[in-house]
Amino acid sequence: MKKMILDLDTGIDDTLAISYALGSPEVELIGITSTYGNVLLEQGMRNDLAITDLLGHPEVKVYPGLPHSSTTDSFSVLPISEFIHGKNGIGDVQIPDSTRKPETQSAVDFIIDAAKTYGQDLIYVPTGPMTNIAAALRKAPEIKDQIGKIVLMGGALTVCGNVSAWSEANISQDPDAANELFRSGAPVTMIGLDVTLQTLLTYKETARWRDLGTKASAFLADMTDFYIKAYETTSPHLGGCGLHDPLAVAVAVDPTLVKTLPINMQVDVEGPTRGRTIGDNTRLNDPHKTMQVAVEVDVPRFLNEFMSRIGGLAQQAG
Amino acid sequence: MKKMILDLDTGIDDTLAISYALGSPEVELIGITSTYGNVLLEQGMRNDLAITDLLGHPEVKVYPGLPHSSTTDSFSVLPISEFIHGKNGIGDVQIPDSTRKPETQSAVDFIIDAAKTYGQDLIYVPTGPMTNIAAALRKAPEIKDQIGKIVLMGGALTVCGNVSAWSEANISQDPDAANELFRSGAPVTMIGLDVTLQTLLTYKETARWRDLGTKASAFLADMTDFYIKAYETTSPHLGGCGLHDPLAVAVAVDPTLVKTLPINMQVDVEGPTRGRTIGDNTRLNDPHKTMQVAVEVDVPRFLNEFMSRIGGLAQQAG
Repeated sequence: MKKMILDLDTGIDDTLAISYALGSPEVELIGITSTYGNVLLEQGMRNDLAITDLLGHPEVKVYPGLPHSSTTDSFSVLPISEFIHGKNGIGDVQIPDSTRKPETQSAVDFIIDAAKTYGQDLIYVPTGPMTNIAAALRKAPEIKDQIGKIVLMGGALTVCGNVSAWSEANISQDPDAANELFRSGAPVTMIGLDVTLQTLLTYKETARWRDLGTKASAFLADMTDFYIKAYETTSPHLGGCGLHDPLAVAVAVDPTLVKTLPINMQVDVEGPTRGRTIGDNTRLNDPHKTMQVAVEVDVPRFLNEFMSRIGGLAQQAG
Repeated sequence: MKKMILDLDTGIDDTLAISYALGSPEVELIGITSTYGNVLLEQGMRNDLAITDLLGHPEVKVYPGLPHSSTTDSFSVLPISEFIHGKNGIGDVQIPDSTRKPETQSAVDFIIDAAKTYGQDLIYVPTGPMTNIAAALRKAPEIKDQIGKIVLMGGALTVCGNVSAWSEANISQDPDAANELFRSGAPVTMIGLDVTLQTLLTYKETARWRDLGTKASAFLADMTDFYIKAYETTSPHLGGCGLHDPLAVAVAVDPTLVKTLPINMQVDVEGPTRGRTIGDNTRLNDPHKTMQVAVEVDVPRFLNEFMSRIGGLAQQAG
């Protein structure tokens, strides 16, 4: 069975990503590496432990990642992140703290160890800033050829960004780290706003979860309603909330959900478009393409998988 | 037979576009509408008439377009354009003036008339600013549903621009006009830097033209060598010159040369990224896609067509 690591700044759609992974029999979630972004690192780890408990998977270990980007000294949650995800990251829904603690091994070392242990069977899915994987690649560059694949949520190639006209939130938190990853030669699939703004969830679907009548399903429904409500303010033209992070997990499990463009990418780190994800013109004619960027998505099929996998998990968890 | 109008700021690669069109038995070049960009409007018309004479096609009429964008009062050629195309636009190679004159009918009216006369059989190929077609759409909006297709050279979706990190030269001359076209609903295929920087010509190919020993082939070889030499300075990593405008003609003749992404596009007209071509997020989930953007190109097949069609024409022209 494929092994999966989720690298999360948990986060409402991060929680849905955990749920999708745990509801997918094709993969084993061997660990969550924590990062900052939607919430502070500490809050994200607290959420990861509490959520995996609630979803009936207390065996999932949580590893502490880096608390801020390599070009900054600290990190504070942006007001917009708090507006979208709530103060506690999970829509201000209250769930019990876990009695477990994060591991003492760092996220960076866990990623490196996992790449060496599982090799081509390892799928690494970062849905926050790329700080941890960039640090891992700096410490052990050889893992770029060992790791099976990296499917990230982040960036925007053919559409506008969401923190500026040219930059998407995850990438903008640490453009330098994302640029290191994009240029590393590691096998990366980018699931950006190009496709995640096409996969929308509405109150109709969360009502179906609520009808399941379990604690887990009520939590997921209440939390996601908070997210949909925020989207009504931030993106009223969409008519739902974007399923960013769970789409990355879904593609990691089943790549046929999207059509991808093979392309060598970079992140602009200098100049006015800092944080933009774009093709690297200097490697345009290199026939070896190290990245795939999703440009089309089978929305009905994904939504169907999303509802049945997460619904199944929420029912089982009780 | 399909009817083709070329809208040109002639220009070295515009000259190659004329040559490709005249070397293609599938289409009849019914007229050239002139625009500004690589050269002033007047110089472009002079070149169009002289070039069609030299290539043995004095039946091709030339129509005067608008001399500058709708948001400016005048136009001057940029120093970089002169560096790339020469002072006279055709690599400072001297060819005789034509004894013909441009038509008295305006380019805008000719485009409208042709759309109404030929309808779905009309292919319009703009390879400069989109000023003329935007003016035609403003004067006769109904032509958007009448015209067969528009295949433009311009823009950059998945790669950096060439006048700034985000803007391509043709679009940057008149972003507002391009935005009008992109949002009009007209059936547009965009052939941007994404693909045209992959289709490169070198001295090896121009030497083959020179070996043909005709006046036309010597002209094309000398002119294109000027262009390749300029590229050695501006884009040394490419190892040749980009065949921008002729690729648009080639795709207009044979769409299977490229893979396209169906997408609703816009041009940024406000803010720091003015002139950028990007997906329109507000129409991302509209299932009706009005544009196709070329993202991959069959380079060997295009180069083969390019050499045989232009070589054949240059031999025939004498």
